[in-house]
Amino acid sequence: MADLSKLSINTLTNKPLPFEELVNLYARKGVPAFSPWHTEIDSVGLSVAKKMIADSGLSVTSMCLCGLFSNEGRENRSDVLAHNRRVLDIAAEVGAPYVTIVPGGILPGTKSIQDTLDYNFDCVAETLEHANSVGVGLALEPLHPIYLADWSGVNTLKTANDWCEKLGDGIGVAVDIYHVWWDPNLPEEITRASQAGTLLAYCVGDFLDPTSHPLNDRGLMGDGVIDIPSITKLVEDAGYDGPYEVELFTSTWWVEDQGVFIDEIKDRFVRFV
Amino acid sequence: MADLSKLSINTLTNKPLPFEELVNLYARKGVPAFSPWHTEIDSVGLSVAKKMIADSGLSVTSMCLCGLFSNEGRENRSDVLAHNRRVLDIAAEVGAPYVTIVPGGILPGTKSIQDTLDYNFDCVAETLEHANSVGVGLALEPLHPIYLADWSGVNTLKTANDWCEKLGDGIGVAVDIYHVWWDPNLPEEITRASQAGTLLAYCVGDFLDPTSHPLNDRGLMGDGVIDIPSITKLVEDAGYDGPYEVELFTSTWWVEDQGVFIDEIKDRFVRFV
Repeated sequence: MADLSKLSINTLTNKPLPFEELVNLYARKGVPAFSPWHTEIDSVGLSVAKKMIADSGLSVTSMCLCGLFSNEGRENRSDVLAHNRRVLDIAAEVGAPYVTIVPGGILPGTKSIQDTLDYNFDCVAETLEHANSVGVGLALEPLHPIYLADWSGVNTLKTANDWCEKLGDGIGVAVDIYHVWWDPNLPEEITRASQAGTLLAYCVGDFLDPTSHPLNDRGLMGDGVIDIPSITKLVEDAGYDGPYEVELFTSTWWVEDQGVFIDEIKDRFVRFV
Repeated sequence: MADLSKLSINTLTNKPLPFEELVNLYARKGVPAFSPWHTEIDSVGLSVAKKMIADSGLSVTSMCLCGLFSNEGRENRSDVLAHNRRVLDIAAEVGAPYVTIVPGGILPGTKSIQDTLDYNFDCVAETLEHANSVGVGLALEPLHPIYLADWSGVNTLKTANDWCEKLGDGIGVAVDIYHVWWDPNLPEEITRASQAGTLLAYCVGDFLDPTSHPLNDRGLMGDGVIDIPSITKLVEDAGYDGPYEVELFTSTWWVEDQGVFIDEIKDRFVRFV
């Protein structure tokens, strides 16, 4: 049973609400922490966002999103790197300890997974230099293999751990159960991240059966088939004691009242995580 | 460039057509071989189906589908095993050298991947005895991890190879690029299957970006992001010289004229496989 003090909500979970409303609602509902996207900070402007966050009393546990380098194509490399530096600067300003990084999908015009990985690895390395210079960590999140085409060639925790090992200080891994629950190597790779001191984040959700859409049909904890407590135990046994972030891309709940949805998230969090 | 003599079409690709029409259409279109589902054989009756196949001159390269043990729940174990034996008997009658086997999704009431795998492994072992007794092979096809909940806990070629190693004679693996293209261990596991003499089948298709549905939005070769020839080369270099089966679950093409679709498959097969 997870304690509500561990709860953090990624703002995409409550996509329909504008930033100010969202921050106020989290505070009113007793959600202790959250993880915003840089686009939301931009929507109100940095100084206004900082004041809203400070007034709300909420902690910022992380920020989204760095990466998606390959998606822009090789010809836009310097632009996408500059964009990533800007995201990290925002994260430093709002006090996010790390930014989630998702390298990107298949490099346009190549169909080559290896070329994509090589290109993105170099871009992550370059972005890491800036991250270190502004004191913000990078949390490399392996995504479910279904997102290889459009989001990430890093689709196992093993690959993410391999990258962190090569990249050195300032980067670790984010374990999102939606993305990794299927992986036969999950226990050993969680242990490996723990031993390397790079287990940065843990995100919870559920996998619905059936799932109607590859991206936007993620399940509320308890509605799906994942044995969530067994994975929570793995990360806890590995020494992880940070927040558990709820990030649900969900067309089903996005059309509902977001206050009701947050109540439901809190209920499920203590019962199923 | 693949030679049309290698082409086999799985009948689910042309789902809208009844069995007799399908067999005639394949023959008329110069498709040399096909892979039926046992439900289609049942739809016309075994002796009629055998005559239709003989008259058409088509080869039967495989048959679908064995498995889905766990989906029926532990309480229906003997029924689902009996059903599997019957599928194998039909395969023997129509001269299919092997039947594709997909063990099944998460065991109802458990949420345990390990219990699911253990249960299904035992059921596969039992089914293999009957397969060997009727002289039909089993081709264990690892499915994409997105199907863990509902179709299969065997979601990497490594797991499939591990199972075959333990199960012994009469079972091998089917490599369907839609299911395995994302896997960083693919080259070494294809080599492993080849060395074990268990590389039974190769299936081609493509992964669309974006993909609108987890099951029924598979791509025609050339429409997606998979570097198909590189995987064809892997299986060929591993000594595979059997047919290349096209199996597309596709809502897009199921509403089109199936003759036009078959022409398109033939065209794409020689250009993109």
